[in-house]
Amino acid sequence: LNSIINSRGPRIKPHNRPMTDLLAVDAGGTSTRAIVLTPDGDCRGFGRAGSGNPISSGPDHAARELVAAVREALEQASSRGSDGVAVFAMAGAGSRVPMDSIAVQLGRVGVLGELRLESDLLATFCSGAWELDGYAVVAGTGAAAIRVEGGRQVAVADGLGWLLGDAGSGFGIGRRIVRAVAADLDRRGPTTSLTALLLAELGIASEGEPTGMGRPASLGLLVDAVYALRPIDLARFAPLVFMAGEDEVAAAIRDDARAALRTSLAAVRTAEVAGPVVGGGGVLGALGLPGVDLHPVVDGAVGAAVLALRANGIVVDRPMFERMRDSLAALRP
Amino acid sequence: LNSIINSRGPRIKPHNRPMTDLLAVDAGGTSTRAIVLTPDGDCRGFGRAGSGNPISSGPDHAARELVAAVREALEQASSRGSDGVAVFAMAGAGSRVPMDSIAVQLGRVGVLGELRLESDLLATFCSGAWELDGYAVVAGTGAAAIRVEGGRQVAVADGLGWLLGDAGSGFGIGRRIVRAVAADLDRRGPTTSLTALLLAELGIASEGEPTGMGRPASLGLLVDAVYALRPIDLARFAPLVFMAGEDEVAAAIRDDARAALRTSLAAVRTAEVAGPVVGGGGVLGALGLPGVDLHPVVDGAVGAAVLALRANGIVVDRPMFERMRDSLAALRP
Repeated sequence: LNSIINSRGPRIKPHNRPMTDLLAVDAGGTSTRAIVLTPDGDCRGFGRAGSGNPISSGPDHAARELVAAVREALEQASSRGSDGVAVFAMAGAGSRVPMDSIAVQLGRVGVLGELRLESDLLATFCSGAWELDGYAVVAGTGAAAIRVEGGRQVAVADGLGWLLGDAGSGFGIGRRIVRAVAADLDRRGPTTSLTALLLAELGIASEGEPTGMGRPASLGLLVDAVYALRPIDLARFAPLVFMAGEDEVAAAIRDDARAALRTSLAAVRTAEVAGPVVGGGGVLGALGLPGVDLHPVVDGAVGAAVLALRANGIVVDRPMFERMRDSLAALRP
Repeated sequence: LNSIINSRGPRIKPHNRPMTDLLAVDAGGTSTRAIVLTPDGDCRGFGRAGSGNPISSGPDHAARELVAAVREALEQASSRGSDGVAVFAMAGAGSRVPMDSIAVQLGRVGVLGELRLESDLLATFCSGAWELDGYAVVAGTGAAAIRVEGGRQVAVADGLGWLLGDAGSGFGIGRRIVRAVAADLDRRGPTTSLTALLLAELGIASEGEPTGMGRPASLGLLVDAVYALRPIDLARFAPLVFMAGEDEVAAAIRDDARAALRTSLAAVRTAEVAGPVVGGGGVLGALGLPGVDLHPVVDGAVGAAVLALRANGIVVDRPMFERMRDSLAALRP
């Protein structure tokens, strides 16, 4: 076996026989990714399914998607299963997923070891860095920053959800967009090219007979359309802020989002830990953080696999990390 | 009769017999007020019940409260009923109240005339001004500004609800408070005395073992408490912003709310209409708008009664307005 037994932790287990394949799952609000890999970091199977987040899709739906992704990955790897520790990287809400029921279903396809929950933010960090110390800053639908020391997440800033936090997130940007457009149509705020973009996105005609109060008809339709959504769905409008050209309102929204993400990163920074800084989430990818040396990642899939190796007592060094990353990339569609 | 028949509108009706009592209702999200008055502006009965807003309490509950308030007012006035036009001042959502069912119920207690919906914002204006032209700016749970010309609401700014608008409202202030406190506890934002005030309001101890991530235990409890509320309920925390002394975070929240309300008022201002400017809602009462000559009102009760007189063809001049206001004040607990 091309692996080194971790001599530090209590997780060492005797290897009386060759270790079976290992399993890692990266469960997000939009999609779930499962990876089957060998103990020496060769990714052999990749599966993808829908939302594995119990908040966005309900615990039972999330459980079905998790199992579907795992089955697909096992099948692609022609794997007979796994008796090691399997890692499930999920947001904090992951604790609401019925893991007992998942364990029974996975047992039928040969996944017999412990199922261990890990932080999705830690998986994001580990997707971009084999090092044991550093930072991750993430802005997708939500937003957060973490500090990692000794391979563990030791500090977190934000990640408090759309109502209390998620400053600089896709939700935050989407909320700012719809409010800026409402203020524009209401003649309370500056004219912005976001208005035409949002109305087109919602299929609302910008003409139409004004109401008796002098309000454009499109404002009434915007109100109806926005309140028909779940608040968190406003995140889907975030891409419009990158399509508005030189628009000053859009530029201010982008600048404020970057400032909020810098503040979250600064809150977990400490002089003792230099980096690297891993950047995750589509919104951060589009925003960027000029001046910060970000290591961008598309999701937490590689990192979940890193955590699965470590959970089974295997040290992940740079060569193994690169082997994992490259073998997984070759599997992904 | 000490009343003048309005000679302009189509609402004149022949008075073959003395007009009966008139009825006005001011229905809000927290409470509903009903007024029974004589055609010469003498308020004889006042009734109060719970929320008459179909959005905050459901259409059937709202209807029950409306009827309860009317019954109480008729009883206090020892009124035999009303066959004139009865005015119900409600937010736009008032159209979702089952007025047909209310009409049947009110018919049983002698209210036999047309039931007419009017804007709650217009009722607020008419609570503070007998004039036919001017402005109202309101900040309670929500926020809006209107321009009134010829006794009709001809322009409105904001009033777009908590997600799209309500800039400077109780909800907006409450949202800013909970986010500022979360950022303080999360060490992302400045220390603020709002933190101790909000934790006390929610019954959360500020001590407690920090989590593994170094976060105070109170932050986790705050997250649980806030997400257990309906978003609009954050408005109940708005009073804390006036209890925070010299706190800079609280001062910034108050200043931003005032600026937003000034922006809404400016959006409906026109050089042709000078004033008066009526100020409504508890949040505006506490904030004030320095430099604006606000005529404060506690609610839309007097204004609903003004609208009821006008709906029955009666002109409300200053003496009649003052008689209404003073006779209603004498009835209120």
